[in-house]
Amino acid sequence: MENKLSIGLFGFGVVGEGIYQVLLQKLSLNATIKKICIKHPEKKRNAPAELFTTDYNDILNDPLINVVIELIDDADEAFKIVSTAITKNKAVVSANKKMIAESFPQLLLLQAEFEQPFLYEAAVCGSIPIIRNLEEYYDNELLESICGIVNGSTNFILTKIFKEKIDYKIALAEAQSLGFAEWDPHLDVSGMDAANKLTILLLHGHGILTSPKNILHLGIENIHAEDAKYALGKRWQIKLTAQAKRLKNGKVAAFVLPQFVSKESQLYNVENEFNGVVLQSALSDKQFLYGKGAGRFPTASAVLSDISALRYQYKYEYRKHQQQDTGLETDFLLWVYVSCNSWADLDMEDFAWIDAIHTTEQRQYVTGGIRFKTLSNATWIRRQGVSLIVLPDGIIQEMNFDLLDKKFLSDPGCLVQGLV
Amino acid sequence: MENKLSIGLFGFGVVGEGIYQVLLQKLSLNATIKKICIKHPEKKRNAPAELFTTDYNDILNDPLINVVIELIDDADEAFKIVSTAITKNKAVVSANKKMIAESFPQLLLLQAEFEQPFLYEAAVCGSIPIIRNLEEYYDNELLESICGIVNGSTNFILTKIFKEKIDYKIALAEAQSLGFAEWDPHLDVSGMDAANKLTILLLHGHGILTSPKNILHLGIENIHAEDAKYALGKRWQIKLTAQAKRLKNGKVAAFVLPQFVSKESQLYNVENEFNGVVLQSALSDKQFLYGKGAGRFPTASAVLSDISALRYQYKYEYRKHQQQDTGLETDFLLWVYVSCNSWADLDMEDFAWIDAIHTTEQRQYVTGGIRFKTLSNATWIRRQGVSLIVLPDGIIQEMNFDLLDKKFLSDPGCLVQGLV
Repeated sequence: MENKLSIGLFGFGVVGEGIYQVLLQKLSLNATIKKICIKHPEKKRNAPAELFTTDYNDILNDPLINVVIELIDDADEAFKIVSTAITKNKAVVSANKKMIAESFPQLLLLQAEFEQPFLYEAAVCGSIPIIRNLEEYYDNELLESICGIVNGSTNFILTKIFKEKIDYKIALAEAQSLGFAEWDPHLDVSGMDAANKLTILLLHGHGILTSPKNILHLGIENIHAEDAKYALGKRWQIKLTAQAKRLKNGKVAAFVLPQFVSKESQLYNVENEFNGVVLQSALSDKQFLYGKGAGRFPTASAVLSDISALRYQYKYEYRKHQQQDTGLETDFLLWVYVSCNSWADLDMEDFAWIDAIHTTEQRQYVTGGIRFKTLSNATWIRRQGVSLIVLPDGIIQEMNFDLLDKKFLSDPGCLVQGLV
Repeated sequence: MENKLSIGLFGFGVVGEGIYQVLLQKLSLNATIKKICIKHPEKKRNAPAELFTTDYNDILNDPLINVVIELIDDADEAFKIVSTAITKNKAVVSANKKMIAESFPQLLLLQAEFEQPFLYEAAVCGSIPIIRNLEEYYDNELLESICGIVNGSTNFILTKIFKEKIDYKIALAEAQSLGFAEWDPHLDVSGMDAANKLTILLLHGHGILTSPKNILHLGIENIHAEDAKYALGKRWQIKLTAQAKRLKNGKVAAFVLPQFVSKESQLYNVENEFNGVVLQSALSDKQFLYGKGAGRFPTASAVLSDISALRYQYKYEYRKHQQQDTGLETDFLLWVYVSCNSWADLDMEDFAWIDAIHTTEQRQYVTGGIRFKTLSNATWIRRQGVSLIVLPDGIIQEMNFDLLDKKFLSDPGCLVQGLV
């Protein structure tokens, strides 16, 4: 029943080398690396010289290699490697969430045509087996929501902001110096990386095939020390979360936004570079998976689990997507907190209602409801100095004005403009 | 590829009825209940009368029924049903941890001979997919330890003791009145239920086939309000944990004992009837799975996931056990806290060393190290009024006396007897 795996490896960075070392020792995995394709042959490598090549074809055209592991940074090159490998009837393992999320339509077609396994557990939440669990264990009809901290760098920075009461820029610099954030952190801190991961979670969790471009995302660049103070006053944390929630009509609300998290949530205690995902299901209620989301060993761990699964012909079946793709819903409301340096930075007309306004010398903030569609089209939410954070239980399916303080409802825009 | 499932159900309690109701609605599962075997035909049931029978054979001898779901309490009857169903080439789902843990040798042989799936995710930690993850995702060589709160009733009682600063007996009575503890709570509060579950975790996590009889277990019956005070003073919680830890020689230390848990552990925040398991692995570091461990819906959720997996011919392969069963290790030390009403209740000679002794008018306690073998043979640890709790990081593989305060080392027994 068990396959012998002969592996062609693309990339020999920290993860690639870690996997090479582990496979040398773990003979029970029945897997050996036959060839390693690298970009920089001049670099000194901790492996025999004859293993290395700079020519893709030495791997892709080798009929004896039955598994390709792709661990390079460049998403376009990664797609070429992965798609060619599948057409050459090789099983593929990848960790490239950007490439996977952006190329799902093509990758699904290729998998269907060539019936080759394409596994990528390392692409979301590193060592946490979230994809495998969503794929195998959480039934689509019963799964109500996914809410996760899926980016370790931003969580590390947010933890520093809260613990040391410092501003975003100082926290980012510290995270970079410790290796917990990239020198070009844009993908992470803008929420784009989390949007890529949410695209993958949506397919395996809810059967929804979408593109990261369709996912509203804000990052943590504008989180202000005053926002952290506001949160601490209410005993909340601020976390960058990727969320998907099934609404009453069966469609799914999904976005990546900063979120206030109360002590009752398991996400409250997810600190530093750790990741955590809360799954809510009709029968099992809340479940929580927690672990290291990135880094050499956690990533290697997930890749090794995929290699291990290939021995037994495991592949994703994408059953939920095949059964029914309900698509995303944009017709709902978000209950949010927005802070700014000046009221002129906000388009207050975009609010469906406002329930609190607060002004200090340093900073103003407002809390209220905004239609998700309006938010998706708003440009002011990305203005420098504007910080938008979703309030706890902030996804509202139906407006119930009876529950709201009516004082600001008549004409919030005018009212607040009066304050400027 | 997909099987149509025709189910024979044994037991129509809250879980059984829940599954019946869900299957009526979830047509996508492609599973229908053909017959339900019950013990008490006189009870009114929320299902058509023609579904019910009191004769096992109406299910076991029906060639059209290809799946048996066993949800009865009686472990001996459950084993008869399960083993007969397997020999009749039916797939089986069960939640009966006692029966499974005690009958593993026979059940493994039957599965190997008849090649029928036998799934039991609901038997450990209810809705948390711990068995499936250990079986599929956590490689044996890399898995270092499992430490879990696997019994919801005892965790509910311990939470009450801590939050309300009340004694065990009062907390138990409240748990019973709320339905969080059985009226005969012995299996739970003695740690026996957790030992059954640990037997199952050991097989799927570490490939070790053992019997619950071989697992040292203490429960929470002797936890004293003073123990909780001691814990609170150090900002710890007391949790009943099932633990398995791979030692340096490759063998595994395993036991069910009350454990002090510090704030750094994810188990610290597992409250009330919830379960949680921390898995430590060489590459992925600590991971944590959390969810509801028992109750109608969480159990039904796990059973439904097993039913769902049967559609795709999923079965446990027990690969780790087949590759290598290292067996359990008993040659290690535990660092423990023991409190008592009188020093005469303890056999102080059993301690390998003592590092603190404390006496108050109400209660005495001692902390020190005990060889696990000695502890396993000790009878005083079960004496009324004696409370033994493992200290954080309490598994000690090699004694390093240099790290210890030497004052009590010379002859702890004599020294403490002097205090009596």
